[in-house]
Amino acid sequence: MRDVAVIGVGMTKWGELWEKSLRDIFVETALLALEDAGLDRIDSMYVGCMSSGLFIGQEHLSSLLSDYLGKNPVPTTRVESACCSGGLALRQGFIDVASGMSDIVLAGGVEKMTDVNGHEATYALGTAADQEYEGYHGITFPALYAMMANAHMAKYGTTREQLAMVAVKNHENGSKNPLAQYPFKVTVDGVLKSVLVADPLRILDCSPITDGAAAVILCPADMAKKMKKRVVKITGSGQATDSIALSSRKEIAWIESTSVAAQKALAMAGKKVEDIDLFEVHDCFTIAEICITEALGLVKKGQGGKAVEDGLTSLAGKFPVNPSGGLKAKGHPVGATGIAQAVEVVKQLRGEADKRQVKSARTGLTQNMGGTGGSSVVHIFEAE
Amino acid sequence: MRDVAVIGVGMTKWGELWEKSLRDIFVETALLALEDAGLDRIDSMYVGCMSSGLFIGQEHLSSLLSDYLGKNPVPTTRVESACCSGGLALRQGFIDVASGMSDIVLAGGVEKMTDVNGHEATYALGTAADQEYEGYHGITFPALYAMMANAHMAKYGTTREQLAMVAVKNHENGSKNPLAQYPFKVTVDGVLKSVLVADPLRILDCSPITDGAAAVILCPADMAKKMKKRVVKITGSGQATDSIALSSRKEIAWIESTSVAAQKALAMAGKKVEDIDLFEVHDCFTIAEICITEALGLVKKGQGGKAVEDGLTSLAGKFPVNPSGGLKAKGHPVGATGIAQAVEVVKQLRGEADKRQVKSARTGLTQNMGGTGGSSVVHIFEAE
Repeated sequence: MRDVAVIGVGMTKWGELWEKSLRDIFVETALLALEDAGLDRIDSMYVGCMSSGLFIGQEHLSSLLSDYLGKNPVPTTRVESACCSGGLALRQGFIDVASGMSDIVLAGGVEKMTDVNGHEATYALGTAADQEYEGYHGITFPALYAMMANAHMAKYGTTREQLAMVAVKNHENGSKNPLAQYPFKVTVDGVLKSVLVADPLRILDCSPITDGAAAVILCPADMAKKMKKRVVKITGSGQATDSIALSSRKEIAWIESTSVAAQKALAMAGKKVEDIDLFEVHDCFTIAEICITEALGLVKKGQGGKAVEDGLTSLAGKFPVNPSGGLKAKGHPVGATGIAQAVEVVKQLRGEADKRQVKSARTGLTQNMGGTGGSSVVHIFEAE
Repeated sequence: MRDVAVIGVGMTKWGELWEKSLRDIFVETALLALEDAGLDRIDSMYVGCMSSGLFIGQEHLSSLLSDYLGKNPVPTTRVESACCSGGLALRQGFIDVASGMSDIVLAGGVEKMTDVNGHEATYALGTAADQEYEGYHGITFPALYAMMANAHMAKYGTTREQLAMVAVKNHENGSKNPLAQYPFKVTVDGVLKSVLVADPLRILDCSPITDGAAAVILCPADMAKKMKKRVVKITGSGQATDSIALSSRKEIAWIESTSVAAQKALAMAGKKVEDIDLFEVHDCFTIAEICITEALGLVKKGQGGKAVEDGLTSLAGKFPVNPSGGLKAKGHPVGATGIAQAVEVVKQLRGEADKRQVKSARTGLTQNMGGTGGSSVVHIFEAE
């Protein structure tokens, strides 16, 4: 297998982009990534998208997007694993370059979620749960994560305030990210007084509904070394699955697929989690980030709430988690999220993250997951 | 890149399987493929499915299916490119093994289409067209292919009877396939008198709505040589895209993406199309097979109608096309079709195709496509 590097990244401001269609926002970011790479060539393309069928009535997505990008007849493939779709597009691009099948690969992600009403969006997102055993009974994603939060609080004494501190931290970081959907700060009190969605989760515990896209350009590391930018290699890729129904898991408040994926990715990179300088993780709800910090091994099981309270995961902490603002502040266009995490890590490792820059960052990790952890993918990035 | 072989194939009878859910039919075929391979191990899995979101309200599909197969936490990824989804799952599996990332990969395809009513199925299939420029105006897939048929008839003198002969040939072959949804024979007169769907296409020109799945097991060719079955290698893989909107094509009655994909696959295999002993192609409508025989280079442009009339593509002809019965007789569960083509070719190259066996077959080609040719993928198979 060949070594693989990221040579271009692209992302535009996320939000409720009613004046643009899915194809518009994807092509904008893809062109930015190509411009960043200084190239106008791709050999193949992967697109992560969860549910363009339900959100905008469009399948057959990757051919449509490469057409609007002016790149047909290049091979293009959409991959889907709910909110993990973007991370899997990155992984398929990585395998494509590593195999020798393609030299220059665009891995992108996109979701257009605000063209339907809230009920329809909730239904579409609910298709990431087990339709026959969860969806059929009317459960929604905030409710599933609320059960995880209640279990975590009951088992480990995690507090309602600690959940809120995840939102406070990520909005603090997000306030320094001009591309974030909600670049404002929030307070613990503000989170606790926000509207209740699914007890104990309130609206400010939840990531938003977002239109957005992101793209990266991959190539063999040897080729990247001839280019002008600092070379950022992908040195580890790990993917794992679990039952998508919470009821089938051994532990409700533990994300096994992330644990397995992280171990695989770190082993491939020859790294320990302590070697990593920053983390972009899937904080679709505040409780999710707490569980993820445990599954990645940043802290012991049950200590994720204390970690955020102690500042361990803040921008200046030992393990900076979600310097971009995370899904919470940056937004969560589900298929795009995994790619946007890679965009942030590459910017950080190049020293291009402005006010949210993690000092002297040389290594980064992305963790993207589907549903309540039915699928997870972890990548390790290293600056040369 | 490592050489890749197919060491197991699985498929069950296709049809209106109201007593089974999507997960049931997928797992049945996956287990058959594992049994055929003599293994109970997979390192990763790819699932081709076009629109489980619209058909059964379920995304996050690959994790669900590997869970029901008892294979979590293995990495599993769903790929989508409309009716080309199965072929792309095969290609991603091929790249995964070739790269060295995984040794034993299950590539499967599935679609459950008959749990919704006809209007909903027509809408879901229509999402393979350009929603903003085709779907918005109410066009359906039979109508799009009817335009291609009219253009072909006007430009090349292709006759209504020649279209019917494709159905006659494929149902003749399908009558010898116990897994086919419609294993009966039809006559030219029967096709011409069947219900009009979109002029000039009649119901017997159209592939059916189908529930079905199929699976293959891939591994490095070196590993395959140690097993008992005849080794069938995948020696070429080509994928290409085109505008998914017919209105954006240079020629309405020519499938450019198939032409490009076939040239790539044949070049990779070091073969000419004349070297291939049998072809499984995407006859979603009778006109499609006529266009595909031209795009593959079996005959010159415009000669596809004459080819079927002359018997060139019949089971005993120079270029046997769709010995399985094709989409027309076997059925067309869209995400599964590309994998089922591979199942048939492997059975043929192993000499296991019973009454529809192509004599002394050593090489085979599969051609799977999305929409009206917005995406195409071609694979070359060779028996050792």
